[in-house]
Amino acid sequence: MDYSTNDSKSTSKKKVVAVVGGGLVGNLNACYFAKRGFQVEVFESREDIRQAKIVKGRSINLVLSHRGRQALKHVGMEDTIISKGIPMHSRMIHALNGTQSPIPYGKKGQYILSIDRANLNKELLSAAETYPNINLNFAHKLLNWSTETGAMTFHLFVEEIQADLIVGCDGAFSAIRKQFLRQSRFNYSQTYIPHGYLEITMPPINGEFAMKPDYLHIWPRNTFMMIALPNLDKTFNCTLFMPFEEFEKVTTGDKVIEFFQKYFPDAIPLIGAEALKRDFFRLPAQAMVSVKCSSYHFGDKCVLMGDAAHAMVPFYGQGMNAGFEDCLVLNEIMDQLNEDFSAVLPEYTRVRVPDGQAIADLAMYNYVEMREHVNSKWFLFRKYVDNFLHIIMPRTIIPLYTMVTFTRTRYHKVVKHWHWQDKVINQGLLFCAAVSVAGGSYLLVRYPPSMPNIPIEQLWSRLQALKSPF
Amino acid sequence: MDYSTNDSKSTSKKKVVAVVGGGLVGNLNACYFAKRGFQVEVFESREDIRQAKIVKGRSINLVLSHRGRQALKHVGMEDTIISKGIPMHSRMIHALNGTQSPIPYGKKGQYILSIDRANLNKELLSAAETYPNINLNFAHKLLNWSTETGAMTFHLFVEEIQADLIVGCDGAFSAIRKQFLRQSRFNYSQTYIPHGYLEITMPPINGEFAMKPDYLHIWPRNTFMMIALPNLDKTFNCTLFMPFEEFEKVTTGDKVIEFFQKYFPDAIPLIGAEALKRDFFRLPAQAMVSVKCSSYHFGDKCVLMGDAAHAMVPFYGQGMNAGFEDCLVLNEIMDQLNEDFSAVLPEYTRVRVPDGQAIADLAMYNYVEMREHVNSKWFLFRKYVDNFLHIIMPRTIIPLYTMVTFTRTRYHKVVKHWHWQDKVINQGLLFCAAVSVAGGSYLLVRYPPSMPNIPIEQLWSRLQALKSPF
Repeated sequence: MDYSTNDSKSTSKKKVVAVVGGGLVGNLNACYFAKRGFQVEVFESREDIRQAKIVKGRSINLVLSHRGRQALKHVGMEDTIISKGIPMHSRMIHALNGTQSPIPYGKKGQYILSIDRANLNKELLSAAETYPNINLNFAHKLLNWSTETGAMTFHLFVEEIQADLIVGCDGAFSAIRKQFLRQSRFNYSQTYIPHGYLEITMPPINGEFAMKPDYLHIWPRNTFMMIALPNLDKTFNCTLFMPFEEFEKVTTGDKVIEFFQKYFPDAIPLIGAEALKRDFFRLPAQAMVSVKCSSYHFGDKCVLMGDAAHAMVPFYGQGMNAGFEDCLVLNEIMDQLNEDFSAVLPEYTRVRVPDGQAIADLAMYNYVEMREHVNSKWFLFRKYVDNFLHIIMPRTIIPLYTMVTFTRTRYHKVVKHWHWQDKVINQGLLFCAAVSVAGGSYLLVRYPPSMPNIPIEQLWSRLQALKSPF
Repeated sequence: MDYSTNDSKSTSKKKVVAVVGGGLVGNLNACYFAKRGFQVEVFESREDIRQAKIVKGRSINLVLSHRGRQALKHVGMEDTIISKGIPMHSRMIHALNGTQSPIPYGKKGQYILSIDRANLNKELLSAAETYPNINLNFAHKLLNWSTETGAMTFHLFVEEIQADLIVGCDGAFSAIRKQFLRQSRFNYSQTYIPHGYLEITMPPINGEFAMKPDYLHIWPRNTFMMIALPNLDKTFNCTLFMPFEEFEKVTTGDKVIEFFQKYFPDAIPLIGAEALKRDFFRLPAQAMVSVKCSSYHFGDKCVLMGDAAHAMVPFYGQGMNAGFEDCLVLNEIMDQLNEDFSAVLPEYTRVRVPDGQAIADLAMYNYVEMREHVNSKWFLFRKYVDNFLHIIMPRTIIPLYTMVTFTRTRYHKVVKHWHWQDKVINQGLLFCAAVSVAGGSYLLVRYPPSMPNIPIEQLWSRLQALKSPF
């Protein structure tokens, strides 16, 4: 089937865009192209999830923040989606002894939203369907496409399908991307982290949330941790992150209880011992992958967006937001370059690759930070200093989390600014320390006390100690 | 065709090993397995290169050093190969004004060897052929293999081929590795550097080498550089490394001469202007890729070795040496674990992955170092300090290049030791500086000169200047 216009000079007839993947980014993208008047064919490998029976407790929560909201706003969907999300103003840290302490995400009034993934996908499908020039093709699993002709072949369909542009929104394990890998000078990396994740539902208690709902609850426990996000049905979706080798040790229901007793005792009565034993083994622990690649485009034929271009580990809550922002960025470039794909796609790669790589790196950095740094006193002291400086110099010093979550500052500029302010703050602290030491030395020499007799080894170890966190 | 023994309990009949790729590592590996009594089938996609007409000037030089020599020694080939190599004791740095300065690779008596790749491959094929239990299958291009059955299919051959173990020695673009990529938790990265390379032959002058032969000649020119390695036929093989975008600017013979006039004037009379114009356009500039992955094995069925596991950029001269050492490492593990593939392959991954990744990283580090650091005064000062300390503490402080090139210290331990000694030396230098400053301050306060009146901004910029290299 040849959907393509064939005649590139015909301006009256709009070109055909094939969006491969009917997930979050695919459907939003379809709306963007449809708004511009393109004929859009969406190809999704699954059946229509709106028709499928809802599998209770299989919903995964996502975090929606500024970038994603801006992208939804452009197609008039922000309010609908926000109304079905639950605002979270702060993290709530659960210590081992059960005490809870909130840490705000930003300034007063700034919050992120807990969103139900399945529901969001359904809303986006229904929104796409309202455009007369979008055609949803379910049960179309891409087998292959030709980089020469651009023709796509689908599982169980004999006919080849042709479009003017292929948009690969088919996720971390993108079938579209496979053809990119065979080209020379295509940079690619897929990195699995040693941690897996497992989801457990915390039911309502007497029809109410079992914990305070307007928080993202965190149980940090060094090498592993649990988080919980609130759902509209008053459940919490708990996610346990842990190295695969630790998961392998927990083999029986009794061991699950023993494990929770040791690390998350306050969660046992809230989830319920029996439910815990059952949920823990419902599915094996899932792997998490980080994907970076370059370029994002192939000639004027194909472009990768969302997880297909930059799948990331989930520790910054930016996966969906970055994918949604992709749609916004492509849209801006389409405006600038008059919808000429041969100019738009290279420009999209030039602009978006540094940002895609930056946010994938930041997510990986947060994976390390959450486990290793959160307990370092130096790290907490620096967070404190950063927040203080942000209050007195709100435009110069901006905490990393704020730039990522509550602005549309390009991700790679976020990283640059972060490194710059980190250096400035550290130098400032060093300078203060140096001035104190110099002043002290001067006073010591001017008004000498009885001379201490420190052997050189001891002096060395004292110098070393200065470098440890405080 | 089923080469496999099928009966895993039969100890009388040796198992069948399929080596995919009849290049350097493939053939050496075949010899290792054959020495152990396995039936070895080598599958090479090309025709027998010993039968092919020699294409003059297409030979590429490789650098052979300690690790590669040790691996060749084990199958009695070290002396033959060394006799056809040319020892290089030092680098010879060509400055823009034509002056040449040698920098030794190690201590007196330590050298690396310039080796002709095509000839080495032929020698290894002939060596493999001397084993009655090695069978060379040319023109066998692997299409696919099944991770379930282990069956391999080859281009133009209808029959499937089965072996007890598949050894993937099929290079940076390994066909065997493709199946690994489809497995969950397989980490993989391929990174192309912005540089390409191009080879030019420097002919003999009056039957003699045009430059001193016992050196690796280097023309470092910041973002690009040229190197030249001597051949037995008294030619030099020059390789120009340059960003692709720079290559694209040199479009005509005249521009080639102009370019060389500007950057490598001393090389023009040695290569000859006409030959230079011709050779420059014989082939387009070639890309260079760095590949890292993990694991190296798949069950007890398949293992990746050489470039298929860890292709690297050529700036450490370790690609072949690392691949040859792979054979030695697998062989050591085969001894330890009694040739039980189900134990040998995971152990090989455990032991070899950190080393494969370390040398790929070091090669990439050298790519940056060669261009950016070589001209930094701090870098040269530190090289000087390292070499001095190596002389007075030969077992404690060992230059990085020496550990990589002249020892069999595991690559990842090389990196560890390097970081450790770097820290120790830097701390030592810092300590010396601190003692000087403290002593100076004390003297200044005790015997104050007229007090200088330095404004705070100036003091700050002076402090900043201290951080620049000297």
